[in-house]
Amino acid sequence: MSLDNIRIVLVNPIYGGNVGSTCRAMANMGLSDLALVAPMSINMDEARKMACHATHILESKTEFSSLAEAVTDCGAVMGTTARNGLYRQHAKTPREWASKAVEVAKTGKVALVFGREDNGLSNEELAICTQIIQIPTSDEFKSLNVAQAVLVCCYEIFIAYDTYEPIQEKSPEAPSEVRERMFEIWRDTLLTIGFMKEDKADHMMQGVRRILSRGTLTVDDIRILMGIAKQARWAARAGTQSHPEDRIEI
Amino acid sequence: MSLDNIRIVLVNPIYGGNVGSTCRAMANMGLSDLALVAPMSINMDEARKMACHATHILESKTEFSSLAEAVTDCGAVMGTTARNGLYRQHAKTPREWASKAVEVAKTGKVALVFGREDNGLSNEELAICTQIIQIPTSDEFKSLNVAQAVLVCCYEIFIAYDTYEPIQEKSPEAPSEVRERMFEIWRDTLLTIGFMKEDKADHMMQGVRRILSRGTLTVDDIRILMGIAKQARWAARAGTQSHPEDRIEI
Repeated sequence: MSLDNIRIVLVNPIYGGNVGSTCRAMANMGLSDLALVAPMSINMDEARKMACHATHILESKTEFSSLAEAVTDCGAVMGTTARNGLYRQHAKTPREWASKAVEVAKTGKVALVFGREDNGLSNEELAICTQIIQIPTSDEFKSLNVAQAVLVCCYEIFIAYDTYEPIQEKSPEAPSEVRERMFEIWRDTLLTIGFMKEDKADHMMQGVRRILSRGTLTVDDIRILMGIAKQARWAARAGTQSHPEDRIEI
Repeated sequence: MSLDNIRIVLVNPIYGGNVGSTCRAMANMGLSDLALVAPMSINMDEARKMACHATHILESKTEFSSLAEAVTDCGAVMGTTARNGLYRQHAKTPREWASKAVEVAKTGKVALVFGREDNGLSNEELAICTQIIQIPTSDEFKSLNVAQAVLVCCYEIFIAYDTYEPIQEKSPEAPSEVRERMFEIWRDTLLTIGFMKEDKADHMMQGVRRILSRGTLTVDDIRILMGIAKQARWAARAGTQSHPEDRIEI
């Protein structure tokens, strides 16, 4: 499993809450290898609270005294920065680097490195990195919370890794034939209930088609739409005043 | 500036830290309109601490007693969910919905709705939503921290906004209030014509909402849909057999 090959490295984290939130973000995106570089004395209660169901990552974290040590075994070392400048000109977005990270992780270790809460990564630390990541942000406030930055990077990697299968509608899109039959019944119903007259029917049906064809129309949807039209036609012909209880169950 | 038209709505937030982190995430991605629905008594010190340089968003937040009130003026109401299930089958990813959000925000308001920290959005709340967002995650731990979920959605919208190319409908998306009135009339009509009985009405209306909310619903569309429902109700009550010529022109 190549996501196991991706390590999140936090340099000098200060707040337990951020370390915990980082664990949760990692677990949400299928990562588990957390390394801390010379952490301050972090509040572990806060960390556990924010880690939520990801305390196993907190408990299995490793600690190193320098960034170089934390990434010795890593083929790609991707450092994050919010600032521009000399060492940061070749920065790319998390989306641009994500497939690279996944590719390297197929056969070796990858580190994603995040700097101090107050001051990011130093130039010396960025020099160790083989790639620089800059998350797209508003110019007004470029600095993300460290756990938020971790989440965005992990999210992009998770999508690139393609473990994700998009949610499919259970019912497939209805074939044209079925859809057209449904529109015929609607046309007839809208004439029957007096919503439109024959001379304007084509024009009105364009409007109805526009509304109903914009998204996916599944076979289930068509069944509902046909049912409504047939029932409205039936009710108009019969009149409901005389037999209000005589409703058709579907 | 259309990002100003995008409102982040938190339903019943509990933790000040999450509200503050939400403000920071919004500012990072160029958003500023925060609404809280019936917040618990949140710790404002924690909120301010986590908001960092985004306390202006915290201070200008609005509060509402229900979700419906918080989104009355919104053309698109996008609800987030981590769960699968009956009301959640047509969910798409933040990336898939981002350009839709940007498009609607060119001419009207958009709400992104996030549920309770412990329990997400209820089915009733999701029913008000025109789109359902599900963030891709590991199956092991699907539930993101609420501020993390906000960040991912805002991040995708920020990127979509950056690369947005306008196209699309002339008539702007209808506001939630108008749409809800239309659905009420449909509900009443579907009962009147005997398409459904009262005990299954909520369930059936979910199907109808799903079909009609998949694409854009413009004010013109709503006018057509209301017209159809009113006319079907009128025809069912009156019966058309007796006076086939007595059709209403629109």
